[in-house]
Amino acid sequence: MSRRQQPPKERLAEASLRLFFSQGYNGTGVKEIVDAAGVPKGSFYAYWPSKEAMGAAVVERYWAGADERLAPLDEGGPPEARVRRHFQALSDLVVDQRFVNGCLLGNFSTEVAGSSEAIRSTLLHVFEGWASRLNAVLSEAAAAGALRAGVEPAQAAEFLINAWEGAVLKAKVERTRRPLDLFEDLAFAAVFAR
Amino acid sequence: MSRRQQPPKERLAEASLRLFFSQGYNGTGVKEIVDAAGVPKGSFYAYWPSKEAMGAAVVERYWAGADERLAPLDEGGPPEARVRRHFQALSDLVVDQRFVNGCLLGNFSTEVAGSSEAIRSTLLHVFEGWASRLNAVLSEAAAAGALRAGVEPAQAAEFLINAWEGAVLKAKVERTRRPLDLFEDLAFAAVFAR
Repeated sequence: MSRRQQPPKERLAEASLRLFFSQGYNGTGVKEIVDAAGVPKGSFYAYWPSKEAMGAAVVERYWAGADERLAPLDEGGPPEARVRRHFQALSDLVVDQRFVNGCLLGNFSTEVAGSSEAIRSTLLHVFEGWASRLNAVLSEAAAAGALRAGVEPAQAAEFLINAWEGAVLKAKVERTRRPLDLFEDLAFAAVFAR
Repeated sequence: MSRRQQPPKERLAEASLRLFFSQGYNGTGVKEIVDAAGVPKGSFYAYWPSKEAMGAAVVERYWAGADERLAPLDEGGPPEARVRRHFQALSDLVVDQRFVNGCLLGNFSTEVAGSSEAIRSTLLHVFEGWASRLNAVLSEAAAAGALRAGVEPAQAAEFLINAWEGAVLKAKVERTRRPLDLFEDLAFAAVFAR
């Protein structure tokens, strides 16, 4: 379906995601979003009471769109290989977008979590959901004796997510996938027994 | 010296750092910076040709101000303990600021590196300088057999920096130091032999 045929809410969400990636949350006004989406300003407020509420909704929507990259966690094979394929799928997306976008969760964490409680709590919720999916697979790994001695699956899940976000942050600066590869080598070595 | 007695350039740099932390680079205009610093707008352009040039200068200045936290790297003791004290000093600052500021390098990496070449190349330069300081200590550790087998000091330096930035990013969302402690437990385990 072409962009003009999409419902206004979809167009607004897509336009805002694009603008948030290119000029940040604070640098993007509601007027700019409605202009980019080609809808009247009133439509925006029919869907969301404020830019902040919309920002939180965009975070949820972004996360819902990551399902394909979470899928490897539930596929066959040893737990470590599934976790690896999951992060590789995420890293490949960062590379495909030529390191310009990075990860919206990371972008909003550094830019907005300090100033918006609504967006901070949405990020917290999304990060918890992600860690919980990862924790399930790492618990299988632990049961199979595949984690390093003393490593707790829940802590390992959070560490891998945080370290990956740090790698993405640095990949935006370097514009190479080297930080993402370093993450894969070293963060995995911290977690998995070899 | 009280704020009013500081030279205008200092006042501008301090005001912009404060504003960049609270509302991001894109959300902060030159007018707001000069108003917050209490100097006429013309002064700004006497020091920097653009907000972008000023943003890059603020990154350099921020890094120059981190000297005290780099100092543990050059103090006595085993290399691992020095690296640990260095990151603890950085993490303590994040905690002291109640997780609101985070790290300017990380904030600008996610928010601005994708859109400003001047700021991206300044960040790259600063990150390289940091990695180089860390690499020197990790090379001592390698010579003493204190790194995990197969870990290269230069790669370990970059990995630790990136993983720390990821931990700070997450600490801004959680408002606890737990991500910073997890970093210390697990990222160090990836690098150092035990």
